Amino acid sequence: MPKAVPQSSYAPGRVRREQIISAAFTAFGAVGYRQTSMSKIAEDCGVSRAGLLHHFPTKEALLQAVLDERDRLAYEKIFADAPGPQADGLDHFERLVRLSAYNASTPGLVSLYAVLSAEATDHAHPAHPYFSRRYDGSRLDLGAAVDNLRSRGLLRSPDIRSTDTAIDVIALMDGLQIQWLISPGVVDMPARLRERLESVLAEPLAPGEDPR
Amino acid sequence: MPKAVPQSSYAPGRVRREQIISAAFTAFGAVGYRQTSMSKIAEDCGVSRAGLLHHFPTKEALLQAVLDERDRLAYEKIFADAPGPQADGLDHFERLVRLSAYNASTPGLVSLYAVLSAEATDHAHPAHPYFSRRYDGSRLDLGAAVDNLRSRGLLRSPDIRSTDTAIDVIALMDGLQIQWLISPGVVDMPARLRERLESVLAEPLAPGEDPR
Repeated sequence: MPKAVPQSSYAPGRVRREQIISAAFTAFGAVGYRQTSMSKIAEDCGVSRAGLLHHFPTKEALLQAVLDERDRLAYEKIFADAPGPQADGLDHFERLVRLSAYNASTPGLVSLYAVLSAEATDHAHPAHPYFSRRYDGSRLDLGAAVDNLRSRGLLRSPDIRSTDTAIDVIALMDGLQIQWLISPGVVDMPARLRERLESVLAEPLAPGEDPR
Repeated sequence: MPKAVPQSSYAPGRVRREQIISAAFTAFGAVGYRQTSMSKIAEDCGVSRAGLLHHFPTKEALLQAVLDERDRLAYEKIFADAPGPQADGLDHFERLVRLSAYNASTPGLVSLYAVLSAEATDHAHPAHPYFSRRYDGSRLDLGAAVDNLRSRGLLRSPDIRSTDTAIDVIALMDGLQIQWLISPGVVDMPARLRERLESVLAEPLAPGEDPR
């Protein structure tokens, strides 16, 4: 986009684009990526099929935009001012609990993620590379957080391994989402995550604020 | 089925039924329940649509048969001779590790379960009641196992709570499956589960045999 052009001249297109992403968000979360047709999304947000294809030439492009939007929302809500896991592991742990509490306020988002990540276990799924990179990144971040805590003497035991802890914590977060979506009253996601994170710490985490 | 009739007279129908379940198993696991059509399953196992509907009048009936088949396989392989979690919690823990090792030898099954359980988080999905009951049952079993261990003085700490441990262990198993399917070389499912179960025990579990 040329810098000299005022943003407002793009506003109608941007609003329409956001409407489409929002409709796709809802549809993918409700019935999954594969089950959702471009025609259905066009219908849901009141644009023609040609209008939809102008913004997103393929369903894969729209899926990528939805995943980017999900990450942008979480980043803005939780991670925007973070020092980073390698600089402050304790801060990273606290933000993960806040992320979990935020997720508990957005079941549609959580459902979208659960269905897409399960679909994307098929290595031929268009979102497979995204989820593969995403899990690699999450494991690296959590591993770096544990390394930072180790270097500061904040771990409960020197036997705690960074990568295994990362794998376990991510698995717990993913699995809690499924049980919580199926039986919302039974599972307190942020409380379960907090207890797991505190199990590797010498001292409890600070009590969390509510990010909603 | 009248007892006097020899089983063999039913064999052709039974074989056909098993072929259909096997084809549905593969299709549901690869692309999910919603994305699979009855016509595709009929085609995959070389029966007419009428032939398929003779055995399974609805896709929901076929889904239930697939879920029952999955449970039957796991039961036969792992739980057939079990004393039960409330009678021997240690035995239940050991069998869960064996189940995880068995799952690691059947990625198609694990994929089926991951996709269906995520789809079924939608409370209108035909498999929602099944998964809801299944998670309730798994939590009760694991909670009973922890209670049994507590009564025998085999827990590492009296602070370990039964239901929370059950929720966490099931979540870990579910989440490990997603990471393992996406990055098979990175995650050792039975090893991660064993370590988690041992974290609540005063003594390590017996080294496992390979159930495959």
